[in-house]
Amino acid sequence: MTKNTKVNAAILIIGNEILSGRTQDTNTNTIALWLNFIGVKVREVRVIPDEERIIIDTLNLLRKSNNYVFTTGGIGPTHDDITAESVSKAFNLTYEIHKEAFKILEAYYKPGEFNEGRQKMIWMPRNANLILNPTSGAPGFNVENVFCLPGVPSILKSMLGGLKNQIVGGDPILSHTISLRTVESEIAKSLTNVQDNNKDVEIGSYPFFQAGKLGVSIVIRSEDQTKIDVCNSQILEFVNKKKIEVVDR
Amino acid sequence: MTKNTKVNAAILIIGNEILSGRTQDTNTNTIALWLNFIGVKVREVRVIPDEERIIIDTLNLLRKSNNYVFTTGGIGPTHDDITAESVSKAFNLTYEIHKEAFKILEAYYKPGEFNEGRQKMIWMPRNANLILNPTSGAPGFNVENVFCLPGVPSILKSMLGGLKNQIVGGDPILSHTISLRTVESEIAKSLTNVQDNNKDVEIGSYPFFQAGKLGVSIVIRSEDQTKIDVCNSQILEFVNKKKIEVVDR
Repeated sequence: MTKNTKVNAAILIIGNEILSGRTQDTNTNTIALWLNFIGVKVREVRVIPDEERIIIDTLNLLRKSNNYVFTTGGIGPTHDDITAESVSKAFNLTYEIHKEAFKILEAYYKPGEFNEGRQKMIWMPRNANLILNPTSGAPGFNVENVFCLPGVPSILKSMLGGLKNQIVGGDPILSHTISLRTVESEIAKSLTNVQDNNKDVEIGSYPFFQAGKLGVSIVIRSEDQTKIDVCNSQILEFVNKKKIEVVDR
Repeated sequence: MTKNTKVNAAILIIGNEILSGRTQDTNTNTIALWLNFIGVKVREVRVIPDEERIIIDTLNLLRKSNNYVFTTGGIGPTHDDITAESVSKAFNLTYEIHKEAFKILEAYYKPGEFNEGRQKMIWMPRNANLILNPTSGAPGFNVENVFCLPGVPSILKSMLGGLKNQIVGGDPILSHTISLRTVESEIAKSLTNVQDNNKDVEIGSYPFFQAGKLGVSIVIRSEDQTKIDVCNSQILEFVNKKKIEVVDR
């Protein structure tokens, strides 16, 4: 048996606009898919308001209980962007001008355009590592295991690629999906048996509605392909017995 | 001055499929918009896995620090649906067959179709209040201030209307949006001044990109329309001075 290395992360979405319903968050999904791909399991997501005390307390809790924490939002030029200052306080680091970030933005903007608002974006926790931003110049940063990304989805997406070498994932989390033309209640008991026989494999059941027909997707997740294969056979066994149609999704 | 009644809620999304990135959560947004409309402010959202210990602990924490908690997911017929049993344990209530739910589902399904899988959905915490489901029969439920809703977005949406009389909101949270043809850094300093002069009003700044042009929406939120109006005038004052175009969005 190979040694399983498990690496966990939390995602912290900072922003009143998500809590008020003004904005539909999509960054959680983007980050979760990306982390999953590189072998990091998201254990928890929190959405919190733009309030310093809450940001500091939540960060200090999450960074101790997870290998990585990813924050989104609050690193822009306006008064409600308080992530960098809050991270400084969470780590007891001076909040100051980051020289490298200054150079990047000075070169990025035309002469005279690097105004006071934009200069706010070079204030960071002392000695923060920069996360380069190929879309709009202003970098994100990380301190230890806390990675701070912007809230604008297209910019966030463009920054993840550059992070790849800084995040050390564990064994990749493999998954296999079986989609069936049935309803959950028809397979619930048999699926429970399979789960009981394979306790360390994650088996999820998700109803779907496609082209006017109901169906169920069963998702098997594990770091171990052999275990997935075992579950897959056990599921197909009862599916065949019950004469349930397997469909593509 | 009128007395401000503030009513807070937390949203708890239960489901591995959100954490793995398989599914994009939209229930947070649906619930947040609805709560906001009836004067309940969402203070926190958490997404957690389908694990009993985590569900119980998170519920017990959130239900004590919020007027209301709304959970989504985990009330279906399969083995990974453990919300009802976890809520029972969180409240130290017996997990048992709910007679009213039994009657509803017995009448809902054709004779012979109310099978073992479906019967799992009538197991609830003792004396739970039902939340009726006009879409697919199986009800949600609440125990005290914890309201348990399904994960399927269309079903969840159809159940919110019936909840309206059970949720007592505070003063409605009013908001006003000013959209500008500018970038955040141009208005950051002036907007900070307005926020500093109006500390108990929530002012957010959100960049947007529409029809090939950049813009910024400023959102002013408060329970007090007069305070919103004051902020609005102060913002329009600097907007006019700077000759920034106000746009519709």
